[in-house]
Amino acid sequence: MSQKMTHKHLAELVGGELIQGDPDGIVTGLNSVAEAEPGDVTFLGNARYLTALKTSRASAVLVGPDFAEPLEGKALVRVANPTFAFSSVIRHFGPPARDFTPGVHPSAVVSPKAVFDPLKVSIGPGVVIGDDVSIGAGTAIHAGVCIGQGVRIGEDCLLHANCTIADRCVLGCRVTIHSGSVIGSDGFGYEFVKGRHAKVDQVGIVQLDDDVEVGACTSIDRARFGRTWIGEGTKIDNQVQIGHNVVIGKHCIVVAHVGIAGSVRIGNYVTIAGQTGIAGHLEIANQVTLLARSGVTKSITQPGAYTGYPARPLIEGRKAMVAQARLPELMDRLSRLEKRLAAFEKAAESSTPTQG
Amino acid sequence: MSQKMTHKHLAELVGGELIQGDPDGIVTGLNSVAEAEPGDVTFLGNARYLTALKTSRASAVLVGPDFAEPLEGKALVRVANPTFAFSSVIRHFGPPARDFTPGVHPSAVVSPKAVFDPLKVSIGPGVVIGDDVSIGAGTAIHAGVCIGQGVRIGEDCLLHANCTIADRCVLGCRVTIHSGSVIGSDGFGYEFVKGRHAKVDQVGIVQLDDDVEVGACTSIDRARFGRTWIGEGTKIDNQVQIGHNVVIGKHCIVVAHVGIAGSVRIGNYVTIAGQTGIAGHLEIANQVTLLARSGVTKSITQPGAYTGYPARPLIEGRKAMVAQARLPELMDRLSRLEKRLAAFEKAAESSTPTQG
Amino acid sequence: MSQKMTHKHLAELVGGELIQGDPDGIVTGLNSVAEAEPGDVTFLGNARYLTALKTSRASAVLVGPDFAEPLEGKALVRVANPTFAFSSVIRHFGPPARDFTPGVHPSAVVSPKAVFDPLKVSIGPGVVIGDDVSIGAGTAIHAGVCIGQGVRIGEDCLLHANCTIADRCVLGCRVTIHSGSVIGSDGFGYEFVKGRHAKVDQVGIVQLDDDVEVGACTSIDRARFGRTWIGEGTKIDNQVQIGHNVVIGKHCIVVAHVGIAGSVRIGNYVTIAGQTGIAGHLEIANQVTLLARSGVTKSITQPGAYTGYPARPLIEGRKAMVAQARLPELMDRLSRLEKRLAAFEKAAESSTPTQG
Repeated sequence: MSQKMTHKHLAELVGGELIQGDPDGIVTGLNSVAEAEPGDVTFLGNARYLTALKTSRASAVLVGPDFAEPLEGKALVRVANPTFAFSSVIRHFGPPARDFTPGVHPSAVVSPKAVFDPLKVSIGPGVVIGDDVSIGAGTAIHAGVCIGQGVRIGEDCLLHANCTIADRCVLGCRVTIHSGSVIGSDGFGYEFVKGRHAKVDQVGIVQLDDDVEVGACTSIDRARFGRTWIGEGTKIDNQVQIGHNVVIGKHCIVVAHVGIAGSVRIGNYVTIAGQTGIAGHLEIANQVTLLARSGVTKSITQPGAYTGYPARPLIEGRKAMVAQARLPELMDRLSRLEKRLAAFEKAAESSTPTQG
Repeated sequence: MSQKMTHKHLAELVGGELIQGDPDGIVTGLNSVAEAEPGDVTFLGNARYLTALKTSRASAVLVGPDFAEPLEGKALVRVANPTFAFSSVIRHFGPPARDFTPGVHPSAVVSPKAVFDPLKVSIGPGVVIGDDVSIGAGTAIHAGVCIGQGVRIGEDCLLHANCTIADRCVLGCRVTIHSGSVIGSDGFGYEFVKGRHAKVDQVGIVQLDDDVEVGACTSIDRARFGRTWIGEGTKIDNQVQIGHNVVIGKHCIVVAHVGIAGSVRIGNYVTIAGQTGIAGHLEIANQVTLLARSGVTKSITQPGAYTGYPARPLIEGRKAMVAQARLPELMDRLSRLEKRLAAFEKAAESSTPTQG
Repeated sequence: MSQKMTHKHLAELVGGELIQGDPDGIVTGLNSVAEAEPGDVTFLGNARYLTALKTSRASAVLVGPDFAEPLEGKALVRVANPTFAFSSVIRHFGPPARDFTPGVHPSAVVSPKAVFDPLKVSIGPGVVIGDDVSIGAGTAIHAGVCIGQGVRIGEDCLLHANCTIADRCVLGCRVTIHSGSVIGSDGFGYEFVKGRHAKVDQVGIVQLDDDVEVGACTSIDRARFGRTWIGEGTKIDNQVQIGHNVVIGKHCIVVAHVGIAGSVRIGNYVTIAGQTGIAGHLEIANQVTLLARSGVTKSITQPGAYTGYPARPLIEGRKAMVAQARLPELMDRLSRLEKRLAAFEKAAESSTPTQG
């Protein structure tokens, strides 16, 4: 982490413009706004860190196009997207990525019926690969990964240590699976017969298309038959549960602890925030955003943001949330009204002449 | 997947009756209602797929006893339970189940003190088995599974790749554990002493009775002492957390992301739907159903369905949910009432003769 | 489990006082209140078990300083903290802890660049240890654990079977990680560029300070850069998700299924109960307690207990919960009020003389 660089070079590296500071000033590292030391580059990726930035010890800051704060004593580099641009800084100063080491570690147990070019894949210690598995060039499989029979894995995939890919699942190209995750566990299907839960065979597969990423400790169940299918470019976080026969479209985001029950069908560009649950057999339209902790109990046919349990359009859901927060006040107002009306009715009664 | 079959044979295979279609017509595969192609068998397991069935390209359909829709051009086979009957079709057309290969893979590390018949169990690559473990005939232990010391495993169990069974836990017969799951992690118990959390030793075990199935990435903690105990035939889904000293009865269903805190006691035939939480030390009666996302804060002593947080009997809980959805409307009505009453009071005041 | 002991010795063992029973009476084992048999010691750690204790078959009971119930036929030992004191009883009667066996199992794959004293660490079967890893004396690494490159592990740590520690993470002394957990998975960070989610490199680390314990199937993501940091003595349960760049202080408790989004900063002595979620970039003050299933959407700056979604101070949150439970009743009362006022308005109208 010590390849020092001038402010001028920093601006070139990130494709930005040095709008303040000495072009020949030197930066030597990087860190967050709060933890930066003199010599570090940082970035303002979120306006909420502006206050902290004012007291940050960083020497240089990547800022967005709208940035117009006075910030003395720091070099400022203007870029279109500071968060994204900072990746180049990380690549410059950060630790090198782990090498791709082609070959099969001697402790790996690889079926002679598996098909791959041993000079173009990297298979780590203790990996187990079953019969009839195919693996594309450029794919790295780290220590302790278990791959069942008949699995097909595309090119340039990265399987982190101790994940599991069960029989016959299919991974496209550039798929990443993090540690502890399980692709192709059985769907949760039973029929209640004579007082017992009889297992319904789960003989389908999981298919992950190109550029899918699956976080750590996530489980994706195989289809009862056919396939559980995750579309191109969709990113799934840690601790997620995806049931059998679920279909998720392209370029979706599924955040941690989300649970999606069996046979749900989700469109493209859908975002599902953390701890959300979706009941079985529902459909979710394209470009829907489900806010954190939503509980979806009906299909959603229109794009837009939804929240709450049961999930409702955002404005409606927010209103309900505000109303809930005001409930104790509401109860007081109701009690007062009842008393006022009762008093009024009593007064009226006593002043009303009897019908004669 | 190509053992073709006549409609007549299909009806025989599933123990049903061909109520429409040519007995000698041919089916060649199977798929879901939506994905079926000509030549495929499908089934109507849920009335919500009826519309889709009408445009399905399937050639033959398993339908239930009440089915009475016109559905031209398809062979119809009537059975008692289409979902369950379809399993026979899957077994006919689907991929063969993985072979049971007796023997111990040379890469497995098995304690010489473990007790089993190597001709009758299947121990895969990279498996680790500790001292004093016993394993019944017919049990298969897949790649990468780690089994601690003194574990007892019955007959015909199936332990999927990369699961972990910790010291001294006990599994009955026909128990299935999916990948990534952990049986016998320490209970979460600390006492706060002198400003620090001091660990309370967890020396009990987990006992899983016959025919229990545990999904992927699920954790079941060992008892502080004694046992955490899952009764016969109970099925547990993925991503579930079961705390120390929990007792679950027979033939229960525990769906994904459920969390059950320590020392909870659950009866028989209980269903706990997804993302539900149960607080510590509670009791749940036989034949209780907890709907998805319930939060149980008190013991439940009567059978029946419960929902919400805090969990309440279904009718009551549904009413509360409806009321919550109408809260913004309720607030408007309350404001209008206040105005009307205020106007009325003002009018009354001005028309009331002063007390003289 | 058969080292019998007199009541007198029992009192000495737990540092308590025998307040009832024969000093020379014999106990031979231990169990919970409900499962104890004659000869067993049990303890009353929670007043809710008092009723059960009265019919328990236990011969001796550890009770707290305030215990003043008549309880015939049992030896009673008074101690300051029955739950904690019972640990000594467990250690006396319970199974021996697993031996620490120094050395490296021949099936482990250990980089020649890893640094440790092979006579002072215990490395189990199938363990994989990468380049430049350092391991302190007294640390045990159980079967199937995968440790990436450049990881630093302190003294007397315990890594249970099949957990994963990814590249460059840092563990202090006496850190325990349970099975299936993943330390150092990538943070969930993408930027949306040209219709696709482009991965934001995650090059930071996870640092776990001394005496941290992490349960089973839990994931802690590495920082984007810098570190995700868990403070000394903090205990984390199973199935927890901790996002990138989160900082948790000292001596906190994080219960199962909690999800903490990226860049959250949490103080010391914070308790986060089960199934709680905390949104990204928030701050939580010292000595905050979040009750089960809370959803935190704003920073919390004051110590104290909070509950609900959105999380509020406990009294306020409880009021809202009570009000919610009374909502259906509230709606009825509101409807009645509307009718009464309407009737009254109508009556008033008909009795009001027309303005002439």
